[in-house]
Amino acid sequence: MQSKPSEKKWKAGVLGATGVVGQRLVQMLGDHPWFELTEVAASERSSGKTYAEAVRWHLDSPVPESARGLIVKGLDPSLDCDFMLSALDSSVAGPAEEDFARAGYPVVSNSRNHRMDPDVPLLIPEVNAAHLDAIPLQQKNRGYDTGFIVTNPNCSTAGLVLVLKPLADAFGLEKIFVVTLQAISGAGYPGVPAMDIQGNVVPFISGEEEKMELEPQKLLGKWDGSRFVDAGLGLSAHCNRVPVVVGHLECVSVGLKKIASLEEVREALRSFEVDAELASLPTALRNPVVVLDDESRPQPRRDANAGNGMAAVVGRVRECPLLDVKLTLLSHNLVRGAAGTALLNAELLAARGFLNRRAAVQNQSVAEPVSR
Amino acid sequence: MQSKPSEKKWKAGVLGATGVVGQRLVQMLGDHPWFELTEVAASERSSGKTYAEAVRWHLDSPVPESARGLIVKGLDPSLDCDFMLSALDSSVAGPAEEDFARAGYPVVSNSRNHRMDPDVPLLIPEVNAAHLDAIPLQQKNRGYDTGFIVTNPNCSTAGLVLVLKPLADAFGLEKIFVVTLQAISGAGYPGVPAMDIQGNVVPFISGEEEKMELEPQKLLGKWDGSRFVDAGLGLSAHCNRVPVVVGHLECVSVGLKKIASLEEVREALRSFEVDAELASLPTALRNPVVVLDDESRPQPRRDANAGNGMAAVVGRVRECPLLDVKLTLLSHNLVRGAAGTALLNAELLAARGFLNRRAAVQNQSVAEPVSR
Amino acid sequence: MQSKPSEKKWKAGVLGATGVVGQRLVQMLGDHPWFELTEVAASERSSGKTYAEAVRWHLDSPVPESARGLIVKGLDPSLDCDFMLSALDSSVAGPAEEDFARAGYPVVSNSRNHRMDPDVPLLIPEVNAAHLDAIPLQQKNRGYDTGFIVTNPNCSTAGLVLVLKPLADAFGLEKIFVVTLQAISGAGYPGVPAMDIQGNVVPFISGEEEKMELEPQKLLGKWDGSRFVDAGLGLSAHCNRVPVVVGHLECVSVGLKKIASLEEVREALRSFEVDAELASLPTALRNPVVVLDDESRPQPRRDANAGNGMAAVVGRVRECPLLDVKLTLLSHNLVRGAAGTALLNAELLAARGFLNRRAAVQNQSVAEPVSR
Amino acid sequence: MQSKPSEKKWKAGVLGATGVVGQRLVQMLGDHPWFELTEVAASERSSGKTYAEAVRWHLDSPVPESARGLIVKGLDPSLDCDFMLSALDSSVAGPAEEDFARAGYPVVSNSRNHRMDPDVPLLIPEVNAAHLDAIPLQQKNRGYDTGFIVTNPNCSTAGLVLVLKPLADAFGLEKIFVVTLQAISGAGYPGVPAMDIQGNVVPFISGEEEKMELEPQKLLGKWDGSRFVDAGLGLSAHCNRVPVVVGHLECVSVGLKKIASLEEVREALRSFEVDAELASLPTALRNPVVVLDDESRPQPRRDANAGNGMAAVVGRVRECPLLDVKLTLLSHNLVRGAAGTALLNAELLAARGFLNRRAAVQNQSVAEPVSR
Repeated sequence: MQSKPSEKKWKAGVLGATGVVGQRLVQMLGDHPWFELTEVAASERSSGKTYAEAVRWHLDSPVPESARGLIVKGLDPSLDCDFMLSALDSSVAGPAEEDFARAGYPVVSNSRNHRMDPDVPLLIPEVNAAHLDAIPLQQKNRGYDTGFIVTNPNCSTAGLVLVLKPLADAFGLEKIFVVTLQAISGAGYPGVPAMDIQGNVVPFISGEEEKMELEPQKLLGKWDGSRFVDAGLGLSAHCNRVPVVVGHLECVSVGLKKIASLEEVREALRSFEVDAELASLPTALRNPVVVLDDESRPQPRRDANAGNGMAAVVGRVRECPLLDVKLTLLSHNLVRGAAGTALLNAELLAARGFLNRRAAVQNQSVAEPVSR
Repeated sequence: MQSKPSEKKWKAGVLGATGVVGQRLVQMLGDHPWFELTEVAASERSSGKTYAEAVRWHLDSPVPESARGLIVKGLDPSLDCDFMLSALDSSVAGPAEEDFARAGYPVVSNSRNHRMDPDVPLLIPEVNAAHLDAIPLQQKNRGYDTGFIVTNPNCSTAGLVLVLKPLADAFGLEKIFVVTLQAISGAGYPGVPAMDIQGNVVPFISGEEEKMELEPQKLLGKWDGSRFVDAGLGLSAHCNRVPVVVGHLECVSVGLKKIASLEEVREALRSFEVDAELASLPTALRNPVVVLDDESRPQPRRDANAGNGMAAVVGRVRECPLLDVKLTLLSHNLVRGAAGTALLNAELLAARGFLNRRAAVQNQSVAEPVSR
Repeated sequence: MQSKPSEKKWKAGVLGATGVVGQRLVQMLGDHPWFELTEVAASERSSGKTYAEAVRWHLDSPVPESARGLIVKGLDPSLDCDFMLSALDSSVAGPAEEDFARAGYPVVSNSRNHRMDPDVPLLIPEVNAAHLDAIPLQQKNRGYDTGFIVTNPNCSTAGLVLVLKPLADAFGLEKIFVVTLQAISGAGYPGVPAMDIQGNVVPFISGEEEKMELEPQKLLGKWDGSRFVDAGLGLSAHCNRVPVVVGHLECVSVGLKKIASLEEVREALRSFEVDAELASLPTALRNPVVVLDDESRPQPRRDANAGNGMAAVVGRVRECPLLDVKLTLLSHNLVRGAAGTALLNAELLAARGFLNRRAAVQNQSVAEPVSR
Repeated sequence: MQSKPSEKKWKAGVLGATGVVGQRLVQMLGDHPWFELTEVAASERSSGKTYAEAVRWHLDSPVPESARGLIVKGLDPSLDCDFMLSALDSSVAGPAEEDFARAGYPVVSNSRNHRMDPDVPLLIPEVNAAHLDAIPLQQKNRGYDTGFIVTNPNCSTAGLVLVLKPLADAFGLEKIFVVTLQAISGAGYPGVPAMDIQGNVVPFISGEEEKMELEPQKLLGKWDGSRFVDAGLGLSAHCNRVPVVVGHLECVSVGLKKIASLEEVREALRSFEVDAELASLPTALRNPVVVLDDESRPQPRRDANAGNGMAAVVGRVRECPLLDVKLTLLSHNLVRGAAGTALLNAELLAARGFLNRRAAVQNQSVAEPVSR
């Protein structure tokens, strides 16, 4: 299906491999056509434990055979990898990811720490692949050699921006009002106590509204050669936790720059198609936005796995008395909202040759640990 | 506490007494200081069954002793009551409530059928008690004698408007965005199948968004002596069903006419107090809006019973990047959103003498059934 | 993998195709190596609707393409099929399945109506394949030609008996205590109202305890050439509904005839392996009982899909102070407990030639509808 | 209603006051007719915080006014109390409760640490009030002066034994098979992660089966003047966690010594009545076992609050094919299973004069802290 750019698989390592997002990365790498999982690392040393011993596995498929026996390493940037996928907790991700980048590793991160750095791409390939142009400046600014940091957005932002992108392209965006109903898996493990969420809603997720009001500005904005220019949207977010395992649902009202009929809006969403470069990436969907007709959809339990969890599923496109259009969207918070987009980012980097320099260096000499 | 306006209790009947809202009415009438439950009626004849036999009781307190032995009657307007509380299903409420009004009964209805009638008050006592002035015109228009119809709003509208009222008074309202997370009990029984809502969200409730965008206009508008004048608000609603038993949560952004600080908004809500007439009603709260400081509240399971279910509980008052203020509110959908407000409406009618004429007529002669 | 006994696929029809179990059958037939779905039928006529129009689909995979356009037929036994899979509601299954059998169709039923008939096999291939020997007598008794009825057990019985079988073989069984915690999907759709089961347990499922105390006697008993001889077990069941979507969990205490260590019991379960004939069936697992070591497993949400839903998953094998062994087991109520076992039954019938005679007749002439 | 044995209220302190059970104790002491809450203490020092500041309150009623301002103390046995109610975590309860007893405080504990001590009563007043006779020997053995320790059983044992007691009295008990479906609140806070229990069952609760197989032996046994003699029951327990907030449901099969009809069993349960001494205790119910006729009850969400949470609710009394009788029972795990029984134990101790000696000493001198 997808043509792999080279014969050899790139060696991938996962930082924060035992957490909820790290597990997804490990699972998705289990039979990846381009990447081979060679290292797993975690912030708390697991003193020589194998991954199978160290992880409390939450997925209903078994731990991939290729991962079971890997020894869980610490966060020393001396791993046998061509690049790192990071699902580190934000309490440690900041300096750890910098250490790896400085040591020469491309770091494809799901953590929030570097998302808003002025020289770090906040990337959804279908939305702003051109932001990768910032990497050389990042390397220059920071004195990185082959390493760099690329991030993906917050789990509730990813689905939103994927749906906003075709609307921005077709009609221009002015204002967005969004209320999220977010799944418990978004809080990791142990995460939300059952006593708090059983038959309940918690109308607060620390830091989430701030992220949702900030990150889309960068994602939908432009890289002008020296800096990221915000999209200049009016954006208001309310974030809630609901008793759902997987799938963030979002109620969105959108104000457009150009007048559009509901059918034009639906058509813009339905016909959103990635270009040939992206379509060739193993994790990509050709049409990453799915529009449902049933007025009671999308629903988290029924639709979160659409497109292997990589689709944003939209329903109930209708008029908004205040802005222009109301719609409901859903995306898989652990796949499209975390591990899947991180992996897609890595695939895009691979396709564009950003992982090769590190791989080339690796072939010449064993990486030397850098001291912090 | 409350001074009952007369010695004798008014005789109350409940139409639709076996449903989820009807049960609440029966429960709340169980030890009511002013009203005595004398009749229960339901659309499907229960052929001489007692209420205890006919009802599938959903509350965790027992069926009130005074109700257990009452024979469930049909919808013939020949019941031994001074007034009717109606929790009829909307499929039958329309003509049935008219029949009772025509037969001389004040009908205090929770059903949606007559809410938007141009001569029927849509009433929340704390919000628009003056709308009762429409009753004489209604009686004249329709040829009703002592009977009339008064309604209360949809369950998700009630809490919203109660919170909007003090903001309208203090600052004026322009625009309201609201997204609801509504409890399953709002759909009655059997209502929502567990297969649809278990660990899930259903982003659609038939007719609900339309009601929420319409009813507040009437509630917050004025009776000008001959007709109801809409409040002229910009109002956009998204409605969702969530796996919660009781308590509708609403994420609201509000645009005000007058600039106000967050602290002024909080204070306007906190200090909202009903007048002496309302405060004397048995079911009334002096301060029907409760403001919580904990940033993770209100929560349905923890806060729905605040003020015996008659309070609207507000939290997270904060700035909105699009409009002026964001807040989260919660109200008990079966009490404040249905049975409690209906009962409060009946109490206000009692206090103002609207139930006496029927009672007087009743003392003279047994009510004659009217033929439809 | 499995060698298909013939080149041509058998034509399968599903009776009750729009229900929760019927949908699973349709899904599992979507890409079946031996069977081709040619007809769907339902008790309530859907007047010419296609399956895609008529069904309220509950699965998270889409309706199979091969089924979407099929016209939903009524229950007339004149369908273009080699055999029928029946997921009819028990209110209609009794005579309808007989009609089809009389008209020459092998009927592989999930309904309870004929399970305990003295000449109808109640079949789990891994447990009592020899019971198929009753088919000729059934045909003779009832005057059926190529048709017959074979049934699979109740959803909570299937998993239990699959686990009891290796224990019966190795140690002999005397007494079984079982308490079930059953998923809501077992009640079909709309099935259990959310108001009844949200954050709750319902300790009663109509008829379930009776089935669980009766069906294992037949399943673990013998066909002696003329009748089924019960297993003569002491068996006590308590059945509960819990708020879980899929997967029936069962707490079981077992009294054995022969003394066995816990390790011997675990080993008997782990090493339970089907014979070559069964192993060649497309839906069969070679080891249909999976034993987990984690003391907090099996769990419905995490383990129901083990072995594509065809495994019985066992955990917590430990001593019982009253009988000999306690254990916890889980099985997928819609797959192993319904559609999957029905399909496996059909596959066994195919492998043994029971579906060929009908197919042969079909080739000669179009089936004539029989009048009831 | 209840005659308080003395004019003055006893001063009560709560150890472990911020936990889930401690909060219930604080709530129930809020308006207790005999006891006044004078001190709250917790294992982790809250450095001078008030109770309102220190507690994360889980109940839907507000923190009692009398408790809000109390300063949270550490576990030094120098508190201004006549007796201590302990809801300490078992990791600290062992020595802490001994310290308080040694310092002269009667300690009424909900913790498991001392339940099986050979000289400590494990008490449910309705079941084994005579076990209080062990206190003098305990004091003598341990060199306690006015202090002593009395415990109540594990939350799932309490309801079971309350139901077994009338059966033991009327018919004698031989064997009990019990499977629990326990609420998440039984695990405290944060307790069970939502990721583990959302739409799931966890068939394991650490140590619970052992407690349930051991504690009833002591509770239903006798104090022979020098030691507790076990009841000698055959008892097998399976324990499960289910996604329910409050209320432990138990499926029980009972083998009786004497043959009894189902109606005799129901009648023995229904007519179970406490004696006059117990009936005079504020928290006691005259009939602590409630028998429901509805075959789908008891249910946790609907019945846990029966008798203010102090009743054991029984339903589905029916024949057991293996033992004699099957039934389902429910009790409120935080009230009957913890705080309520602890409070009832304290009331019984008060009524019998066990709290007076400490109170008398207190009046003479301020308690001296003991050094451990």
